Amino acid sequence: MNRKDFLKTTSASAAGLAFPLKSFHVPTKKDDRLVKVGFIGTGSRGTGHLRGILNRNDIEVPAICDLDSENAARAKQMVLDAGRGNPELYTDGPDAYKKLVERDDLDAVFISTPWEYHVEQSVAAMRAGKYVALEIPAAISIEGCWDLVNTCEETGVPLMPLKNTCYQRDVMAVLNMVREGLFGELVHAQCGYQHNLYGVLFRDDAQFGPHEGRARASNWRTIHNLKRNALLYPDHGTGAVGHWLDIHRGNQYLTLSAAASKAKGLSNYVKKHGGENHPYRDADFKKGDIVTATLTTANGETVIIIHDTTLPRADNNKAFRVQGTNGLWQLEADRIYIEGRSRDHRWDEFQPYQDEFDSSVWKKHEEDARGAGHGGKDFFIRNAFIESVKQKTTPPIDVYDAASSAAIVALSEQSIANGGSAVSFPDFTRGKWVTNKPIFLPEELGY
Amino acid sequence: MNRKDFLKTTSASAAGLAFPLKSFHVPTKKDDRLVKVGFIGTGSRGTGHLRGILNRNDIEVPAICDLDSENAARAKQMVLDAGRGNPELYTDGPDAYKKLVERDDLDAVFISTPWEYHVEQSVAAMRAGKYVALEIPAAISIEGCWDLVNTCEETGVPLMPLKNTCYQRDVMAVLNMVREGLFGELVHAQCGYQHNLYGVLFRDDAQFGPHEGRARASNWRTIHNLKRNALLYPDHGTGAVGHWLDIHRGNQYLTLSAAASKAKGLSNYVKKHGGENHPYRDADFKKGDIVTATLTTANGETVIIIHDTTLPRADNNKAFRVQGTNGLWQLEADRIYIEGRSRDHRWDEFQPYQDEFDSSVWKKHEEDARGAGHGGKDFFIRNAFIESVKQKTTPPIDVYDAASSAAIVALSEQSIANGGSAVSFPDFTRGKWVTNKPIFLPEELGY
Repeated sequence: MNRKDFLKTTSASAAGLAFPLKSFHVPTKKDDRLVKVGFIGTGSRGTGHLRGILNRNDIEVPAICDLDSENAARAKQMVLDAGRGNPELYTDGPDAYKKLVERDDLDAVFISTPWEYHVEQSVAAMRAGKYVALEIPAAISIEGCWDLVNTCEETGVPLMPLKNTCYQRDVMAVLNMVREGLFGELVHAQCGYQHNLYGVLFRDDAQFGPHEGRARASNWRTIHNLKRNALLYPDHGTGAVGHWLDIHRGNQYLTLSAAASKAKGLSNYVKKHGGENHPYRDADFKKGDIVTATLTTANGETVIIIHDTTLPRADNNKAFRVQGTNGLWQLEADRIYIEGRSRDHRWDEFQPYQDEFDSSVWKKHEEDARGAGHGGKDFFIRNAFIESVKQKTTPPIDVYDAASSAAIVALSEQSIANGGSAVSFPDFTRGKWVTNKPIFLPEELGY
Repeated sequence: MNRKDFLKTTSASAAGLAFPLKSFHVPTKKDDRLVKVGFIGTGSRGTGHLRGILNRNDIEVPAICDLDSENAARAKQMVLDAGRGNPELYTDGPDAYKKLVERDDLDAVFISTPWEYHVEQSVAAMRAGKYVALEIPAAISIEGCWDLVNTCEETGVPLMPLKNTCYQRDVMAVLNMVREGLFGELVHAQCGYQHNLYGVLFRDDAQFGPHEGRARASNWRTIHNLKRNALLYPDHGTGAVGHWLDIHRGNQYLTLSAAASKAKGLSNYVKKHGGENHPYRDADFKKGDIVTATLTTANGETVIIIHDTTLPRADNNKAFRVQGTNGLWQLEADRIYIEGRSRDHRWDEFQPYQDEFDSSVWKKHEEDARGAGHGGKDFFIRNAFIESVKQKTTPPIDVYDAASSAAIVALSEQSIANGGSAVSFPDFTRGKWVTNKPIFLPEELGY
């Protein structure tokens, strides 16, 4: 039995299962076996993942792919310095990744490439039997979402979207509170990506400008802002919300309606800071500065998502709110109200609740998470992936989670283009959401 | 020239004018003349207004109408005690108000009745030449909104919706900041009514239950929650937002899309606290607990409104946010960011801005506002109305403001019923919004 068939056997149909598939061969000691990980994309984000992975003693990195040979060489040196392998490099054009995924010594790949490459690279990796850790959004078209789902179901090879916010410490404590019923029956949630991206969108090689062709590190993201009026980055919030609301696992998004404000922020920035010859000087950015989407669910909740990345602002990715028949948490104001616990209809501070409902996984790995990126979240998301590979089980965040968040990009674009009309949400589970049980179970799984 | 014709002459077409119409007869001293005010509705809210009015030395109350003779008698005694007249009472059935408005000794009426009576009573009052101070929402159907606008335009008699939040101290400071350009070009706003209403919806005579017929003080509002899945109370936020965005005065709402969560809060409350025989024990409340609406404007802003009154919560009517190309204010977190003032892309506390941009009107009347209701706001809204009557000018909040907020009730209901589809916003100005200039000018008017 080769690796591909082995994975197929152990993970087949895992996607539709109620609980994570337990493998035939859980290693008796975790370090019995090294997980061999290939990297596709070693720009800013991929390098961050590589750095985190190299801190582990249970991995090896035999292969790295990047169109930019400088990126690839730097990544290779990092692996050598860490003593985690002598990776072969794949830098020869846009198809180089295909050779990497076909290697028979890889268990898994991390894909941290421009969004538009996510689907083809993930599909190829799954077809080659490699577990996929995929940056977000997983896809930027509805067809792309379906390609991921269909391939995962056909091959039985898992894909895990790297929604690190699912492992944010307060978000996990709130998940415990949701599951213990503190909020009662859930009714409403809010989330957002509220974070100025000028530094990302106009750094270094944004000077390449809005031409077609090779999209370099920062420039590809700028081009998305140029061309698409859509909620471009939904996962930051929807990962957590999806777990609170059991999306795909007893619940489902039904409709989405979106609106976009005027687009002023990026062109103002270029005019103010770009100088006379900035390549985006005359660009007509399509993406509205504030894009909002309202979703309805089968269980009757509403969800509001805000995308706010192109106006001058102090950072605030704390747009989370979850509200039920017994109270609400509102991260923006750092407060909570729980009927029966909060006194005299007054807000409580959140910290005592954080302490009481803190995730056991966070407590266990607090030291490991220090400095791991994005406030520690990155350690947990990578750890969950590697543990799933080692245990040959379905990761706790799966291809349906990947697709349902990613679909918001294209659905919001459709709704905005149609003047805010509500669009139906595809059911990527093909009806299985009715009986599927939650698989994001950090307290039980230990990761 | 009788009073009706006089008003018609001085206020004719005021509705469409760029600036408040100055009357022919501005009194040389304010107290030269008493404003004679009738009250229609002296329940909870009407009594609050009466109490505030009776604190003034420039008014007299010659007439009071209430279907509940106890309410009317109590109100009369208040007037007698204050030495502000010996009001005649109108308590004889639903048409009693008609006799009140026809009196020829009244300058103005305050209408604080159940929502469904607002339009017919206001129309009658305007036709009888009486300035109208109307509680909110001014109407609960699109036809009702048009009736108010048409009658106001036909008669030339002004109507002022009592949107007291327009006079909230921080909201007024932010209006000054908006007008001084601190936020740059506006892009987005948020507001909400987030306030548990169990005490209002189930007090006293909610025991009458959901039958048809005479709707008593608290019960009529409960019935709206029973029958309509809509954003029932938009004005709390939209008054302020309308001024920030110059709605009807250089800008206009274009579309509205709404969504409603499941409705659990009220029935849960009745089950938990109502006992076996509560009249709403088996009621099927239509209004979703969280109703949200997203609006787009002619100038390209987006606006989100949240209605959240039927779940257990600590109060929080601080959902305001205004955001532009140069920064944002976020009341929920009590912070502000202004490019060029805020350091290192960090949030500032709001208080120094409040101090710097505080409204001169608030400073002038700080003492008068103490204890006036709703944190002092109620003094200012009543004062603006009475000053407008005395000066025979258009009030600074007008019938178009009344209609545009009130329309959100019916438009949200339509959108929700149609699965969140966007509905077009009526243009109550019939195109005049393009050239109309702002009339809410407290710093210039002094009220």
